[in-house]
Amino acid sequence: MPAYKAPLRDMRFLLNEVFDYPAHYAQLPNGKDADPDTVGAILEECAKLAEEVLSPLNLSGDEEGCKLENGEVRTPKGFKEAYEQYASGGWQGLSHPTEFGGQGMPMSLGLVKSEMIGTANWSFSMYPGLSLGCMNTLMQYATPEHKAIYMPPLTEGRWSGTMCLTEPHCGTDLGQLKTKAEPRGDGSYSVSGTKIFISAGEHDLTENIVHIVLARLPDAPPGTRGISLFIVPKIIPNADGSLGARNGVVCSALEHKMGIKASATCVLNFENAQGWMIGEANKGLEAMFTFMNTARIGTAIQGICHAELSFQGALAYAKERRSMRALSGKKEPDKVADAIIYHADVRRMLLTQKAIAEGGRAMIYYAAQLADHMTNGIVEGDQKKYKYWDDKLGFFTPILKGFLTELGLEAANQGIQVFGGHGYIKEHGMEQIARDARIATLYEGTTGVQALDLLGRKVLIMTRGKAVREFTAVIAKFSVDNMRNPRMRRYATVLAKYAAEWNLLTMRLMLTARKDRDSVSAASHHFLMYSGYVMMAYFWALQAAIASEKIGNGGSEKPEFYKAKLATARFYFDHLLPRAKGHASSMVKPSKTLTKLPIESFVFD
Amino acid sequence: MPAYKAPLRDMRFLLNEVFDYPAHYAQLPNGKDADPDTVGAILEECAKLAEEVLSPLNLSGDEEGCKLENGEVRTPKGFKEAYEQYASGGWQGLSHPTEFGGQGMPMSLGLVKSEMIGTANWSFSMYPGLSLGCMNTLMQYATPEHKAIYMPPLTEGRWSGTMCLTEPHCGTDLGQLKTKAEPRGDGSYSVSGTKIFISAGEHDLTENIVHIVLARLPDAPPGTRGISLFIVPKIIPNADGSLGARNGVVCSALEHKMGIKASATCVLNFENAQGWMIGEANKGLEAMFTFMNTARIGTAIQGICHAELSFQGALAYAKERRSMRALSGKKEPDKVADAIIYHADVRRMLLTQKAIAEGGRAMIYYAAQLADHMTNGIVEGDQKKYKYWDDKLGFFTPILKGFLTELGLEAANQGIQVFGGHGYIKEHGMEQIARDARIATLYEGTTGVQALDLLGRKVLIMTRGKAVREFTAVIAKFSVDNMRNPRMRRYATVLAKYAAEWNLLTMRLMLTARKDRDSVSAASHHFLMYSGYVMMAYFWALQAAIASEKIGNGGSEKPEFYKAKLATARFYFDHLLPRAKGHASSMVKPSKTLTKLPIESFVFD
Repeated sequence: MPAYKAPLRDMRFLLNEVFDYPAHYAQLPNGKDADPDTVGAILEECAKLAEEVLSPLNLSGDEEGCKLENGEVRTPKGFKEAYEQYASGGWQGLSHPTEFGGQGMPMSLGLVKSEMIGTANWSFSMYPGLSLGCMNTLMQYATPEHKAIYMPPLTEGRWSGTMCLTEPHCGTDLGQLKTKAEPRGDGSYSVSGTKIFISAGEHDLTENIVHIVLARLPDAPPGTRGISLFIVPKIIPNADGSLGARNGVVCSALEHKMGIKASATCVLNFENAQGWMIGEANKGLEAMFTFMNTARIGTAIQGICHAELSFQGALAYAKERRSMRALSGKKEPDKVADAIIYHADVRRMLLTQKAIAEGGRAMIYYAAQLADHMTNGIVEGDQKKYKYWDDKLGFFTPILKGFLTELGLEAANQGIQVFGGHGYIKEHGMEQIARDARIATLYEGTTGVQALDLLGRKVLIMTRGKAVREFTAVIAKFSVDNMRNPRMRRYATVLAKYAAEWNLLTMRLMLTARKDRDSVSAASHHFLMYSGYVMMAYFWALQAAIASEKIGNGGSEKPEFYKAKLATARFYFDHLLPRAKGHASSMVKPSKTLTKLPIESFVFD
Repeated sequence: MPAYKAPLRDMRFLLNEVFDYPAHYAQLPNGKDADPDTVGAILEECAKLAEEVLSPLNLSGDEEGCKLENGEVRTPKGFKEAYEQYASGGWQGLSHPTEFGGQGMPMSLGLVKSEMIGTANWSFSMYPGLSLGCMNTLMQYATPEHKAIYMPPLTEGRWSGTMCLTEPHCGTDLGQLKTKAEPRGDGSYSVSGTKIFISAGEHDLTENIVHIVLARLPDAPPGTRGISLFIVPKIIPNADGSLGARNGVVCSALEHKMGIKASATCVLNFENAQGWMIGEANKGLEAMFTFMNTARIGTAIQGICHAELSFQGALAYAKERRSMRALSGKKEPDKVADAIIYHADVRRMLLTQKAIAEGGRAMIYYAAQLADHMTNGIVEGDQKKYKYWDDKLGFFTPILKGFLTELGLEAANQGIQVFGGHGYIKEHGMEQIARDARIATLYEGTTGVQALDLLGRKVLIMTRGKAVREFTAVIAKFSVDNMRNPRMRRYATVLAKYAAEWNLLTMRLMLTARKDRDSVSAASHHFLMYSGYVMMAYFWALQAAIASEKIGNGGSEKPEFYKAKLATARFYFDHLLPRAKGHASSMVKPSKTLTKLPIESFVFD
């Protein structure tokens, strides 16, 4: 397993040079303390934790996995100690309000942290990650009494949390869910049912686990309009916050998974477990979806985590492994053969990984600023503000989640490929990265769900194309601004064409969708991937523009970093962006290509 | 794990309707016995073995894996019994000469067999598969005496064989290999060295294992021109073929791999093992490469095996799992939700798998006819005939191996995707297919090696573009012939354009390569994938043409099969072929996009 080294130079480039986070934080009510020095110190400390404590447990965690014995889950060796360091360092509450013991930093810093923690050890990061989802939900919907009990230990990391949605027969289609909640008459409820795929559903890292559970009241209407939200703690806290009785929720099995083996994926049986409703009756699904955009960006990060880690591993190997000679002649004549990094095709693979990791990171850092405003809307109880920024963010979420996790998986597979046969061997850790990365396109809404959310909901229904028009206007303006810069003209020209095409394609799909509703599903995947490639192209051009400016100024002591940005942008435009052409062509093909074949004609004996 | 059902209808369609195998076999010296009835019976019997004996051991084999104890390897439960059925059924010698106890059938039937065995249980198929490589090498290079000793038990399957090429420091670059062979003075040699990644290097399925080993003589020149080929049996046979002394070759470790866990991948230590040279001194690499094209097609098959198996699993699930409603309205109004196969995007995934499996199968069956002629050239000792057909086949080999294994991996991943989160769970077997498929782009020459072999060797150096010109002429003729058929016009038009473009791109790359040798490596991946997409388009159009003819005749009792072919061809042209556009664009980009970035500028602290 490659030893993780946090890409701090790239992170600082994005924070300070590309997206001007200092100015962004200065305007946020909770950004005063996030001055550049503090942010710098947080990055350094987080990198240390990730590199020194979490990264060394990544391979061993996969090998050992989690064990279930008598309803108790044992996490792999070293996880408990690592989690204690994580919690005692105050990392869990980094972006949560000070009134609950958090550090009150903006949400975006939490995302930066998540990347480092997640790249070092994605399985580990699932435990605090799920807790964040639970905390966010409580923060918005719980009563002050419940917040007082639950938020401080969760923020401190002394307790952890989960999100219990999926049941054996339904995941995406939550309208089918069956878990019941019956009033006990004392204001609490008896929750009964089976939930599956519950990450961090049971483990030995914290003294209590707070489940946020979707269930139906006895008189609830069927479907999605009859789902309510409940707090169901593993151990019922007393009014003073101390631990009381064990609740009726039991982990009956751990899933055997392809990867993220150190993350406990639990089947949870709720048997008359005591729970408390939060939010309004029958509006649980809406409540659950409040932080959906944030949660999905948390998963989008997985794409860049695995691209980055696999890149670091492949790069080290490509410099070290010697095979054949470069076609243009010996590069290391005194060696038995040239290092494989001298082969253009190996560089193509490495640059693919690098372009995905850094291009994706830029997309995340951009969206993270929107998430800051959105989160503040919630914290401040300003519904209008929340809605405004959540809508803005909502356009980026499915693209980031769907596109970046697909590309993250590709990058992880390229890392194996650079290793050749050795990539298939467990000891090197490269295959684990691909197995760990494989979950990212499945959970938090599959790529297909993201694609439909993007094209069907965000673009066609909610904004009638406006979301695309707005973002392509940003691209178009960038193109105009950069057309006269000789270093940038190439990118400006290409981007201008794609911005226009993206709009045209959107319009064409809108028109088709009026007559043919299946066309939305038929086009959605290609539209998602197309959007991702064009959006990433913009963020690469943006990075190139800044880099080119820095080089042009001559003021940079170390132009190599900026030159590498230019080279990677060039690579992206030459080798990855052209894939958008195929998607552009396929998305406008008739839906009947997909729908026409009768079900019984897919195979013949 | 999906229970495998051999796609016999599709196989018969290709054999009898598309490629006219009856006529092909009628003209082969060893094809007389391969009459349609016999071939039909062989298909049925092989399907039975694959479905009933091998498929049920696929999931359990992965779970149990192989165990090494005191130098002995134990294969998973059931493998030995299954292998005995395989051997006693005469399957190992199906395509090998009757003089050694084989059935003397054409090579192509062996490939059809390999697909069924491999789809049912790829790990199992590695044991007899490696044996075939060993048998082929002996058949051509061993002395009559050695053949008499080794060929009968290998053909019978009583013994098995391996190919020992890779060493810890070199795989692709065999010029670096260090294993030594010192003359013992009695005509035999002492072979010493370490070989890694030796599939079937040690196991409990056969009473003896015959290693074909690449090693250096004491006076050998360095590099690839100093490598010779040796037979090194695990147990040294006496002159009468009975088993004699244990030889100095030991399995010191089994690799821990991402997948194909039931296949024993061994580290073999040769310590003064007795061996016999075959072929000429220092020409071992050439000898090893005689059957390289056949071996690589054997691996290309893995692409379609895993696409087919994953498709079968995903299709069954998509008909059964219910989630949401189709966008065009309820399809199963009496059910809680529609089966997910009614969602256009799920169909896109299923059709991707189907188009890859069936399109790839057509490519394999086409190449298999060339392989028949080539193999007969060897068996007949007709070097000119061998060379002619090997060159023909040589153009297809890297495309089939490189492109089909990449697409096979994609199809396997799509199968997981159709299952959603359940695809990530081991019990369903879908994730195993992706792990098993992952090796295919790595061994027998990585995709990068195939790409360079195709563009650098086969297209630019060996044929100066003629290979492309000849194949595109076939496509162009097909286009002209089908332009007036209204059902085919669409495909004919598109194909004609791609045929012309493929030639132009080839010419352009040839011109660039004269001045810039790195451009060959830089373009190779895109050229390989482009070639694959266009070639598969031709084979889909060919299938569509036959299907359209059969429907047009009105003579078919069951037009559904042919209609499905038309629908899948349409899908291929609408949703997969357009990817070629991106590769066409990228392959002509300057090589400096890849080569310019200094090695030390790939990452910055």
